[in-house]
Amino acid sequence: MKKCNVAVVGATGVVGREILKIVAERKFPFGELKLLASKRSAGMRTSFKDKEYIIEETKPDSFENIDIALFASAEAASEIFASEAVKRGAVVIDNSSTFRMNPEVPLVVPEVNPEDISWHKGIIANPNCSTIQLVVVLKPLHDVAKIKRLVIATYQSVSGWGREAMAELNQQTRDIIAGLVPTIRREILPYQIAFSVIPQIDKFLEDGYTKEEMKMVNETKKIMKDDNIKVTATCVRVPVLVSHCEAVNIEMEKKLSVHQAKEILSKTPGVEVVDDPGELRYPLPTVAAGKDPCYVGRIREDNTVPCGLNLWIVSDNLRKGAALNAVQIAELLIKK
Amino acid sequence: MKKCNVAVVGATGVVGREILKIVAERKFPFGELKLLASKRSAGMRTSFKDKEYIIEETKPDSFENIDIALFASAEAASEIFASEAVKRGAVVIDNSSTFRMNPEVPLVVPEVNPEDISWHKGIIANPNCSTIQLVVVLKPLHDVAKIKRLVIATYQSVSGWGREAMAELNQQTRDIIAGLVPTIRREILPYQIAFSVIPQIDKFLEDGYTKEEMKMVNETKKIMKDDNIKVTATCVRVPVLVSHCEAVNIEMEKKLSVHQAKEILSKTPGVEVVDDPGELRYPLPTVAAGKDPCYVGRIREDNTVPCGLNLWIVSDNLRKGAALNAVQIAELLIKK
Repeated sequence: MKKCNVAVVGATGVVGREILKIVAERKFPFGELKLLASKRSAGMRTSFKDKEYIIEETKPDSFENIDIALFASAEAASEIFASEAVKRGAVVIDNSSTFRMNPEVPLVVPEVNPEDISWHKGIIANPNCSTIQLVVVLKPLHDVAKIKRLVIATYQSVSGWGREAMAELNQQTRDIIAGLVPTIRREILPYQIAFSVIPQIDKFLEDGYTKEEMKMVNETKKIMKDDNIKVTATCVRVPVLVSHCEAVNIEMEKKLSVHQAKEILSKTPGVEVVDDPGELRYPLPTVAAGKDPCYVGRIREDNTVPCGLNLWIVSDNLRKGAALNAVQIAELLIKK
Repeated sequence: MKKCNVAVVGATGVVGREILKIVAERKFPFGELKLLASKRSAGMRTSFKDKEYIIEETKPDSFENIDIALFASAEAASEIFASEAVKRGAVVIDNSSTFRMNPEVPLVVPEVNPEDISWHKGIIANPNCSTIQLVVVLKPLHDVAKIKRLVIATYQSVSGWGREAMAELNQQTRDIIAGLVPTIRREILPYQIAFSVIPQIDKFLEDGYTKEEMKMVNETKKIMKDDNIKVTATCVRVPVLVSHCEAVNIEMEKKLSVHQAKEILSKTPGVEVVDDPGELRYPLPTVAAGKDPCYVGRIREDNTVPCGLNLWIVSDNLRKGAALNAVQIAELLIKK
């Protein structure tokens, strides 16, 4: 198999670094590897697989001779450089929200809609972290029982907002533990997150929903290819470093018992059922962090509707929610 | 007005201490005040309103000459001593779950069903913290638009599990900040709560729901006097010291616009609307802690059902969720 030349844009960020970890873990067959970032990080050195790399500033020419460009940077970088990469023959796998709802761009979760990579025109979008773990678990249930409506409440870790938000949680926590009033850097998170929760992720839209909430609504429909699935969400930041949790209420057309749902989910690639209330076993963010699966538990029938289920879904938002999903897409591309 | 003699059972616990604070703040007209607790705390001294009190061990005779006994201790104490107090002529206001679903015992939230205190037979139950803040906000909407179904996800602080759980969160946080692996005292909380969330509050029942979740289901119906309201809940512990938050999805018989809901709620006693996305204003646990109202915000129409709303409700679980509600019931009793 031909090894492909890979560029990672945003290689110094939390997702970029996770991509490198996963590339190494999965023995991804890369040839040349270019680590790109903003001007600020250019010149930094990093070692990867016993070789030293120098971080380069992302420029249009950076993508010459690159086969796959994994974008793990801010939206601005994707807006500027994705087309430059495509122009130079690279396939872009973009982790930002820039192209996700573009009808010309496939939005792919390899366990759910791998077939959609076939119609890409140079760019493949990686869905939002909270959407990925949701659809990996819901797709097999939808196939069997047709999901009609979802009511979701999330418990999202600060790493979803980048390294600075993680540092912010740590610093605020240290301050409070030391008896100090924590300094809040409002440009990072709008309010204190240590020992608190914030019911806002990303910006507000006209109708009072946040962008994050609407990502879950719109991306779920696109990935599952079913505009009839009704989705409503409340997205909340919690003082956790890594892993997102989701309380998901499902209405289906067909009744599924807890036993049936467990049986379906335990056979689903990428899903791990952790569900034994008697033994106090259910998914936890501390356990999911650093691991690949989407964990599901607390599977309960919801008898307030004819065919209802409640689930608790947890996954590492940096891995399956971002870096792992992107590398899996790259693996699909290579297989073709 | 005749001053009444008051006993506080569990006076050294987090709720008991909050009761004393509120009795002082609201100038509750008490005559004699007895501070009762378990044998372990007996003999401790505490000062209250410039007077020193000695904590006494709770015994049947402790309730001689007491008019109102506020129980803020474990279920076991209520099971043993509530009837002893009633036998001696006291009215018991019980914060435990022991009598809540007993059809002979009114379950009262003064803003919602004050009329129910009239039929007490010696015991009045104080609802569960997560239920109180829910019904205070929902009752006026139910009166106007009839609630058909609720899907709830909670973000509950550790103080709901008592002072030891608060100490546990603090200690685990200190350990982690110091780079240590935190010691988990599993008899208090089943897993690490610092920098994590735990999707379990109270024990599991046969069907996979927790007791806490079923309290929300059953108590909501009893307080609102409507068995037709369908309720399903997922209750989650978060690393917050005080205040519970709730993401609440509502289906109603009648459509309410955001504007209408805000107008109704802004006139509701005990409720404070904090809802201005443009200014990033919404209820926060850090702001609610130490205050009386049930805060509601993030009011959004949910168009996935004909008449849907999403709300975010936050309140101090030790105050309105426990101590304040109990003292308000006592105030109602005195007025009669």
